Amino acid sequence: MLNFSEQPHKRKNLLTGEYILVSPHRSKRPWQGQVEDLVPDNRPHYDPTCYLCPGNTRADGTVNPEYTDSFVFINDFSALLEDTHLDIFNEEDLLQAEAERGICKVISFSPRHDLTLPEMSPREIKAVVDLWQREYQELSAREWIKYIQIFENKGSVMGCSNPHPHGQIWAQSSTPVEIEKESEQQKAYFQRTGRTILQDYLDLELKKDERIIVNNAHFVALVPFWAAWPYETMIISKRAVASILEFNEAEKEDLAKTLQELTIRYDNIFKTSFPYSAGMHQAPVNSGEHPEWHWHMHFYPPLLRSATVKKFMVGYEMLANPQRDITPEQAANTLKQQATVHYKAQ
Amino acid sequence: MLNFSEQPHKRKNLLTGEYILVSPHRSKRPWQGQVEDLVPDNRPHYDPTCYLCPGNTRADGTVNPEYTDSFVFINDFSALLEDTHLDIFNEEDLLQAEAERGICKVISFSPRHDLTLPEMSPREIKAVVDLWQREYQELSAREWIKYIQIFENKGSVMGCSNPHPHGQIWAQSSTPVEIEKESEQQKAYFQRTGRTILQDYLDLELKKDERIIVNNAHFVALVPFWAAWPYETMIISKRAVASILEFNEAEKEDLAKTLQELTIRYDNIFKTSFPYSAGMHQAPVNSGEHPEWHWHMHFYPPLLRSATVKKFMVGYEMLANPQRDITPEQAANTLKQQATVHYKAQ
Ligand SMILES: O=P(O)(O)O[C@H]1O[C@H](CO)[C@@H](O)[C@H](O)[C@H]1O
Ligand SMILES: O=P(O)(O)O[C@H]1O[C@H](CO)[C@@H](O)[C@H](O)[C@H]1O
Repeated sequence: MLNFSEQPHKRKNLLTGEYILVSPHRSKRPWQGQVEDLVPDNRPHYDPTCYLCPGNTRADGTVNPEYTDSFVFINDFSALLEDTHLDIFNEEDLLQAEAERGICKVISFSPRHDLTLPEMSPREIKAVVDLWQREYQELSAREWIKYIQIFENKGSVMGCSNPHPHGQIWAQSSTPVEIEKESEQQKAYFQRTGRTILQDYLDLELKKDERIIVNNAHFVALVPFWAAWPYETMIISKRAVASILEFNEAEKEDLAKTLQELTIRYDNIFKTSFPYSAGMHQAPVNSGEHPEWHWHMHFYPPLLRSATVKKFMVGYEMLANPQRDITPEQAANTLKQQATVHYKAQ
Repeated sequence: MLNFSEQPHKRKNLLTGEYILVSPHRSKRPWQGQVEDLVPDNRPHYDPTCYLCPGNTRADGTVNPEYTDSFVFINDFSALLEDTHLDIFNEEDLLQAEAERGICKVISFSPRHDLTLPEMSPREIKAVVDLWQREYQELSAREWIKYIQIFENKGSVMGCSNPHPHGQIWAQSSTPVEIEKESEQQKAYFQRTGRTILQDYLDLELKKDERIIVNNAHFVALVPFWAAWPYETMIISKRAVASILEFNEAEKEDLAKTLQELTIRYDNIFKTSFPYSAGMHQAPVNSGEHPEWHWHMHFYPPLLRSATVKKFMVGYEMLANPQRDITPEQAANTLKQQATVHYKAQ
């Protein structure tokens, strides 16, 4: 019988079909490497130099409106452009390239410069969820768009260059690598069973109750059995829907509550604003029906031992295989033990 | 006609079959995000607290020999253990895990605490290459070992916790994810053409001469057409061999020279000890013949704009698709322009 907390082992990620390596005994290793700077957490409500604060002028001269909820605009430094020819390049099948068309947007979550999701109210977060849904609808109305990635980079250690709470949306003319993998695995399972793989996985996780962090009427947040990042989690909708478009009011309210509770628990672990990259995975758009696709949201947070010591996915991980030290069950226990009131408000 | 330096586009990685996204116009974006600490470069020849220096005592009480070239030992905090049962866990095909057996070793490249590969002589680097070859031979003599990953994490920004120049070897009982991908792509090509894909790719790159950095009798270092990291490179052997085992003396000498020249060029770009994760990819062992496998070595360096501003592979990259700003051709030009004498020795 495999002993998860003693034996090095690998676990299968059902969504990608790929394995991750778990080295449970390795967390005892002393750390003499890089320590991150503690980012001071004393921002003003309003920062006149911030390009996201209401009323401020951005790089291209545009003036932000005096918005009161959330606010969306086209990224001034978009990685993808709407106006590009769909040219193809191929030399002997050895050099292959294709133009990619897209739209990149930035979403400010709040007019307040000093807040983050865990410090916002469910009502305020619900306004962000509404905006995500509206944007998803509007973007998918363009037939050339095939996939829409909604995500957030939080914290400077995750490459976020502005502490004003915000997320991004990249919509594009083809399907990215990670989505291709998840499509393939979900399709194979659906064709075999007539159910989404996440529906069956969620049922089993709820029955076992070992990795569940948040559980309300419409959503579950859990540490996936195959988590690669130390405190990686996933939010799964209880109803198998292909995208955020299908969420009703009650579901959107519950999603806001789930986001708040999960991110509060994160902040409470090390009493710090917990950095992460997070984003939704949902069905490709303008490409027929996708009954195999089940909406979910990944959280990839890098911190491992403290507010300043993170996990490095380098060397072996980049060249061979993702690897983790603490087990997903240990991480789930730590997350479960946290209070659901933010440490700053305690 | 696709314009590489103007249009956002994606390029196919021949070794993984996956695409990367290139946003050439985006390097103009100003950077207000995290800036890495400049690690002071004034280490002594010998550090009494270093667990790699000759004669010092390690965590488990072992005393290092007074070695004069390179030196290898089992990692005191190995992620994989030799002594483990190969148990399997499966619950409804939804929770799948398998024990993994392995050996993790550390290789000190030099008795000198203050050196790095670009500051060592080709003769000294050749001693490291010899050791890699010996270790590969010895480890593959154990029939349960199926894959051997030789790699180096250099610099604290790449998770390296000791500046004494060293690399690692992780040998294990199954084939890691990245190797599975490369096996599949190489096999498909070999079955179709009877040649390794890297042989044909290398011929084309040599003919075009747009991304070649080092070119000697037995090796080429180039920026692959599909590079994801800003200054990513690959060393490819001119002879199609499946592993380091097959290299003769002349090839090992040339590999040492290639490693020295490439890493000197890296250091010279920003006049800093250029961080990276690097490692060889070679055929799985104890699993029959692999005529499709072609030895190569990847360099994944994170720096983008300066000695302190790196590329963050976060958010969109983690959830959807690797993305880069400067083009591989721009990176190749910068690397080509560098002197082949180390900036500290100039
Ligand atoms: O083994 P080290 O050097 O202590 O640790 C480093 O390399 C390992 C292998 O790439 C990674 O798993 C660790 O995250 C990294 O910090
Ligand atoms: O767009 P930003 O926030 O300036 O930049 C950040 O997010 C992007 C999308 O994940 C990444 O490509 C960048 O490397 C990162 O620094």
